[in-house]
Amino acid sequence: MESWQPDKRISTPPHVLTIAGSDSGGGAGIQADLKTFEAWKCYGSSVLTGLTAQNTTGVKAVHQVPTDFVMQQLKAVWDDGPPQAIKLGMLTSASTVDALATYFARLPNASSSKPIIVLDPVMISTSGHMLVGDEAMASIRNNLIQHVDWLTPNIPEAMALTDMADEGDMNVESLFDMMDITHELSVKYNAPYLLLKGGHKPWARRKVKSLASAAMKAGVELVWLDDGEGGDCVEVLQRQSGEDADDNSYMSEKMVVDLLQERDSDRTTWFISKYIRSSSTHGTGCTLSSALACSIALAAESGADISAQAICQRAIEYVKSSIASAYSFGKGHGPLNHAHMSYRRALPPPTPSNPHPFVSHLIRSDLPLWKSYVRHPFVIQLGNGTLPRESFEHYIKQDYIYLQHYARAHALGAYKSTTFESISYFTSIAAHIARESSMHVAYCESFGISLATLEQTTESAPCAAYARYILDVGAQGDILDLYVAVASCLIGYGEVGLWLQKEVKAGRGNKEGNLYAKWMEDYSGKEYLDAVDRGIENLEKLIAADPPSPARLERLTKIWQECVRLERDFWEMGLKL
Amino acid sequence: MESWQPDKRISTPPHVLTIAGSDSGGGAGIQADLKTFEAWKCYGSSVLTGLTAQNTTGVKAVHQVPTDFVMQQLKAVWDDGPPQAIKLGMLTSASTVDALATYFARLPNASSSKPIIVLDPVMISTSGHMLVGDEAMASIRNNLIQHVDWLTPNIPEAMALTDMADEGDMNVESLFDMMDITHELSVKYNAPYLLLKGGHKPWARRKVKSLASAAMKAGVELVWLDDGEGGDCVEVLQRQSGEDADDNSYMSEKMVVDLLQERDSDRTTWFISKYIRSSSTHGTGCTLSSALACSIALAAESGADISAQAICQRAIEYVKSSIASAYSFGKGHGPLNHAHMSYRRALPPPTPSNPHPFVSHLIRSDLPLWKSYVRHPFVIQLGNGTLPRESFEHYIKQDYIYLQHYARAHALGAYKSTTFESISYFTSIAAHIARESSMHVAYCESFGISLATLEQTTESAPCAAYARYILDVGAQGDILDLYVAVASCLIGYGEVGLWLQKEVKAGRGNKEGNLYAKWMEDYSGKEYLDAVDRGIENLEKLIAADPPSPARLERLTKIWQECVRLERDFWEMGLKL
Repeated sequence: MESWQPDKRISTPPHVLTIAGSDSGGGAGIQADLKTFEAWKCYGSSVLTGLTAQNTTGVKAVHQVPTDFVMQQLKAVWDDGPPQAIKLGMLTSASTVDALATYFARLPNASSSKPIIVLDPVMISTSGHMLVGDEAMASIRNNLIQHVDWLTPNIPEAMALTDMADEGDMNVESLFDMMDITHELSVKYNAPYLLLKGGHKPWARRKVKSLASAAMKAGVELVWLDDGEGGDCVEVLQRQSGEDADDNSYMSEKMVVDLLQERDSDRTTWFISKYIRSSSTHGTGCTLSSALACSIALAAESGADISAQAICQRAIEYVKSSIASAYSFGKGHGPLNHAHMSYRRALPPPTPSNPHPFVSHLIRSDLPLWKSYVRHPFVIQLGNGTLPRESFEHYIKQDYIYLQHYARAHALGAYKSTTFESISYFTSIAAHIARESSMHVAYCESFGISLATLEQTTESAPCAAYARYILDVGAQGDILDLYVAVASCLIGYGEVGLWLQKEVKAGRGNKEGNLYAKWMEDYSGKEYLDAVDRGIENLEKLIAADPPSPARLERLTKIWQECVRLERDFWEMGLKL
Repeated sequence: MESWQPDKRISTPPHVLTIAGSDSGGGAGIQADLKTFEAWKCYGSSVLTGLTAQNTTGVKAVHQVPTDFVMQQLKAVWDDGPPQAIKLGMLTSASTVDALATYFARLPNASSSKPIIVLDPVMISTSGHMLVGDEAMASIRNNLIQHVDWLTPNIPEAMALTDMADEGDMNVESLFDMMDITHELSVKYNAPYLLLKGGHKPWARRKVKSLASAAMKAGVELVWLDDGEGGDCVEVLQRQSGEDADDNSYMSEKMVVDLLQERDSDRTTWFISKYIRSSSTHGTGCTLSSALACSIALAAESGADISAQAICQRAIEYVKSSIASAYSFGKGHGPLNHAHMSYRRALPPPTPSNPHPFVSHLIRSDLPLWKSYVRHPFVIQLGNGTLPRESFEHYIKQDYIYLQHYARAHALGAYKSTTFESISYFTSIAAHIARESSMHVAYCESFGISLATLEQTTESAPCAAYARYILDVGAQGDILDLYVAVASCLIGYGEVGLWLQKEVKAGRGNKEGNLYAKWMEDYSGKEYLDAVDRGIENLEKLIAADPPSPARLERLTKIWQECVRLERDFWEMGLKL
């Protein structure tokens, strides 16, 4: 093992483990679990209990993993650092269930590092395949459930767990029947948290609304997931969805109620949401229990006091939108869209080996263009002292005009700021340019250009085009647009200063007797380069705090390239005098 | 199967299949593959060839999956719709290799739907565990490789495949030795694309730079992944990284060269990148081959003509930044940060069941506040005709002043626009308000308020506060900020109009003889509500095109809430006259 360790600035995400079966088709099992972990930005590991040859139309074959090997996997994962949360899915054999129960029983009980265990009591697949036998189910009920923190049955599973199915009492006639089942399970298995998933039994909005008020009086808490308070105060959105066409159809709309029962507080919550009519429901149970495990682990990590209700709501909302955003896939019940809440960054995050991903991207987005600016013949001739004096004089006069607008652009940045820090950054640059203008005047005088001459100089088209482009970007866009617009001047002159200094060092430039030595010194001096560093750091900080979408990055890149082009034309103006 | 089908607007991503082993620890194997597929937004399925009990310190035990069951999984996946690309990883037995070779051999060769196959010739794990036996390796070489499109060995694997290891000729002394190996493998196995991964053998930048020019003359193409042209023209970034402290240390820096050999064009490419010193390299090979499979599948799907070089570059860059952004995990060689290029959306994408996620979020972000605006006592009294006439008159006079600023805000929106469509949207609203001002005047006259009175009315503080807030948001922020600032008035009045109309219908409001009937009609009329719909659609379109980061969404939500509060105060002003 090398002594090298990863950068500590990149924090380790919570570790969530799934103990479940494999679905070759990728829609359910540990595949759905791992996809969910990725979506929630948790680190996922997996212990396989069995493999299925499966696709969206059903399970074709099952391969059992021996209990010994299940436990070897668990031990390997645990020994490397135990997970913060565990999701238990398909547990195919009684011996595996018993071995897991024994393992969990031996964990030090009081330990704060004991993982939270979520059990999805899987019995049959969405496609109707019996996944767990009677013997394994009996072991789950008798030996395993007592170690579980969260139990997440759907209605058929809940009835099987309460023995209602055996007693021939299969009916759930009202939402209060669901409350009865929840209470019975809660008492029978003493689970701290019980989530009864109501997706198998949708109800008309009318019924839910009328029962909801009765439930509230009985102390139930209501969480409306789609519409504020069941459609109140959002007439305008209902109209948009065509839902107010007639009030009757709106009230007949199907709703799903998920019930959360909290043992210690004896609190019951109804999560009420629109029923999503969809055939893309393969792996819904796996996904919900995995999302719950992530939600729990992330809440614990945040250190904030997040209620079980809030933890649960996040998981349910994720599953609902995963179903709603599902795409067509396969011939049967398609998978959920696990990745719908993630999108690809347009830029990697900063790392020790790539500390400036944004500025590096800007420069590399058109390297020949950048090179045509920072290695312009004007610059090269300036460095070796062969630049015609008239060219430099023309340039320096226009630069005096440009700097005034450049200072104004920074004042505009201060005006657009939302923090004192930002106001201070922009005003200090504007003030610095204004202050240093006297040095610019003195420098011009050394070339025989008087202040009067400077003030009578007509602004050239390249100067006007560039300065006014920056100011217009500032007026049209937000503060980040403006930051980028002023950056190519700041950074480019730093690049030129540094490079000329190196060239002189390497004997390729010429400083002795060079008319422009002072100019070169100014832009390779500590004061200027420190300002460049601050500018680069500020840009990277803004980008890291609010990572741009591809569309936004494209716009920013366009502003940068336009400014680089206008900078190049500014040298060109000097040279082509 | 239900007849219902997922929304066609949500397109199905490319399907990528991994045929490989499982790593319980989650860092390598199909776990690394699935994590990579998620990061690339491809749909992942998996055929398991073997299971390992494994963590970051090594492989503890292996469980073989019978060849028959491997093939049952493959058939299940394939029958549901073949993948666009396949990644082959750990293939533990010769019989499995042969069965796969036979399966691929039977695929119709000319078919355009034939998946692209990437083979990662896994032999030993990062931790040094021998994963594939000699017999299986022989089968891979003799029977399987001929069906493979991309071969991605590292240096030891490449030498084993060329028999150089057996001949005792284990040394890679120069980059040209690597080119020799690449050529030999390419000829020996006739693979269309061969990527030799150079991570095991880093070179000093000095050496790479000097050989690079020789290589270029020999026709090799160079792709510098970190610095433009090996550090040229980015002095300013090197300074930032402390790399120019002295030129010698910069030139001594370790670099990695990956070689791509394209059979048909006989093109050789060197991908040159900084060597990342890291112990987080567990699963690097799995991740590269999976990223390559995704990059290939996405390039094919895009329909654009994307070169093998560009496809390869994307995969290499992903792996490099996955290593660079790795966090501390486990006791041995830690995993890569597969999720580093994704981040969680702050809002779900629009779906048929949630077509307006942004506006819905804004309204629900503070429902009591929203309610205090759209169900304000002023509105309720207006609806049942009990609102004191003086209150309404005060309101309507201030509204005349407000509307002028509201029109100006839309003109500012046109000024900040980047498309004619947007200019047209904003100017048409501004023009409409200006035109309709004469109707406002006429309406005021019906209350005995003359134009002269309107023009002499002093602007109240609530009106000034609200109107100037909107204008300031427009000046300070970008066009989306302004869009949100003008939206709460537009949408809120639609909500009020629709609700009052419903109340009247339900007999709770009062229109007959109501002094304010015309006002109610205006804001529930088709013309106004169509404008509301357009406004909502525009907002959702902007958000979908450029999904906000959490920070951005928070800022937009703050603007919305401030405007809702100021709208409420505007009613309040009328009532508390």
